[in-house]
Amino acid sequence: MIKAAIVGYGNLGGGVELALKESSDFQLVGVYTRRAPKDVKTYGAKVYSMDELLAMKDQIDVCILCGGSATDLPVQTPEITRFFNTVDSFDTHAKIPEHFATVNQTAIENNTVSIISTGWDPGLFSLNRLYAQSILPSGETHTFWGDGVSQGHSDALRRIDGVVDATQYTLPNKEVIEKLRLGEKLALSTRDKHFRECFVVLEAGANAEKIREEIVTMPNYFADYDTTVEFISQEELDKNHKAMPHGGTVLHTGKTNQNHHQVIEYNLSLDSNPEFTASVLVAYARACARLATEKQFGAYTVLDIAPKYLSPRTDEQLRKELL
Amino acid sequence: MIKAAIVGYGNLGGGVELALKESSDFQLVGVYTRRAPKDVKTYGAKVYSMDELLAMKDQIDVCILCGGSATDLPVQTPEITRFFNTVDSFDTHAKIPEHFATVNQTAIENNTVSIISTGWDPGLFSLNRLYAQSILPSGETHTFWGDGVSQGHSDALRRIDGVVDATQYTLPNKEVIEKLRLGEKLALSTRDKHFRECFVVLEAGANAEKIREEIVTMPNYFADYDTTVEFISQEELDKNHKAMPHGGTVLHTGKTNQNHHQVIEYNLSLDSNPEFTASVLVAYARACARLATEKQFGAYTVLDIAPKYLSPRTDEQLRKELL
Repeated sequence: MIKAAIVGYGNLGGGVELALKESSDFQLVGVYTRRAPKDVKTYGAKVYSMDELLAMKDQIDVCILCGGSATDLPVQTPEITRFFNTVDSFDTHAKIPEHFATVNQTAIENNTVSIISTGWDPGLFSLNRLYAQSILPSGETHTFWGDGVSQGHSDALRRIDGVVDATQYTLPNKEVIEKLRLGEKLALSTRDKHFRECFVVLEAGANAEKIREEIVTMPNYFADYDTTVEFISQEELDKNHKAMPHGGTVLHTGKTNQNHHQVIEYNLSLDSNPEFTASVLVAYARACARLATEKQFGAYTVLDIAPKYLSPRTDEQLRKELL
Repeated sequence: MIKAAIVGYGNLGGGVELALKESSDFQLVGVYTRRAPKDVKTYGAKVYSMDELLAMKDQIDVCILCGGSATDLPVQTPEITRFFNTVDSFDTHAKIPEHFATVNQTAIENNTVSIISTGWDPGLFSLNRLYAQSILPSGETHTFWGDGVSQGHSDALRRIDGVVDATQYTLPNKEVIEKLRLGEKLALSTRDKHFRECFVVLEAGANAEKIREEIVTMPNYFADYDTTVEFISQEELDKNHKAMPHGGTVLHTGKTNQNHHQVIEYNLSLDSNPEFTASVLVAYARACARLATEKQFGAYTVLDIAPKYLSPRTDEQLRKELL
């Protein structure tokens, strides 16, 4: 049995708790939180204060870190990797090399294993980009996201003066995907690949047209996209727009022998983004515990991990049942 | 530069020659054949007799084995692995454990590396079954093949008395795939998942109805499927049915938190099955050469190989560019 701890308990931590229940080779030691433990409602797991984590070191094989990428993980992953094997889903793409370097140094100095940036992008999508580009090196890869809720863009909407609540959907341009599948060569701008759809609840008396203008011209988030904005009531938002679906496509097309069109496509369609990400974290927590048993200390990403490490089955079973 | 040899030169060997041209870290030493070298037409590669292979041992880092799974590879892979690092695309699923055991023993005894059963099924499809089942362990995986030409089924048609030539297409049941994607639970028989479509050229005077009956009732190959048979001329077969397209889908669906439907789907759509398989072989030949450099001797399958080994890029580049 692999003894796991969940560090941080929001949507992702809850998803990890559920995923661990599906994995009979794991035992959940507990949830560790910075909040008052009595205020944290789990699906049944014991809740401890974060201050108790270190004292329970001998009972834990791997810590599954469920904090956010903006402020939690850059600090927590190195800190906790000093004492524990860890997995995280750090997803700020541009900062991954720096995060890797920090965590790797800590892991090597302390004889621990850390697998960073698991999840689906970075994560499963990264794997598929790597496999596809290695197989058809002169092909082209495109990644599309959605239909799904972008937490970052929804947050950006909620920070606008006069906005009470909001949900933002990212929608891939399905016509473009279909053309790429068929082998068309397209010069694609940001605007061509995705649409953005905003459902916004206004404060009483807010100027709707001014806010719409502020949204569609917001740099980085919306200005480069065709964005629609719909103003709705809090009731409607709560009823229809509080789920967290997501997904997307990694599409790689290339040619062999000049005219043979070859298409590799990976699709995810997820009713719950955090619960799926959590399921990926748990599979890599298994890999992490095994690498630690093999004393292969250091930091890893999904690109470094042999697929068999994710499965509870033996190598013999995998060859017989899955090849 | 990785110095590669192609052993055996049919459609697959030709595909490997083309794929090596796309990979600037490879140098092709030559094609090795059991036929008279002067009878083998390549895309430019030098052709040697198989008898010369061993004498050129020092010039070759990895042999890419392009023989067939029925009779060539069970003998050739162990034999050549005594002296060389090898990759093959052995695809008789039921015999993979036995093939692995033989090749593994040879590789360990002789300090070589062999990666067996690469390609797309077994191969990329196996990887996707493994990743998906490790992430959503209580989900269901279905593999569909096609639209594409099955060489084995086409051969079975050509062995029938009165048949001059034939091509067999395997077609997945797209309605069933769509239902599974949407989360329907289906008890599927072999007949429900695929159709078979035969284009057959008859000898002059052959009894068409008798042959049709023989086809659709042929055990193992056609009896368990809805099979259509169309009799056409050799000219039409040559014109429209001599390409070798294939592909398929690995579809894994599961639930988290009881009612969140999660779908993982991997699709290949290939104009040329042998050229794509060849491209996969070359990526694993790169991995093979690297494992040999690291002195990690023994046999491997795609399930054992960390994804980064397939790419010519450094770990740092991969983290920066693909994660």
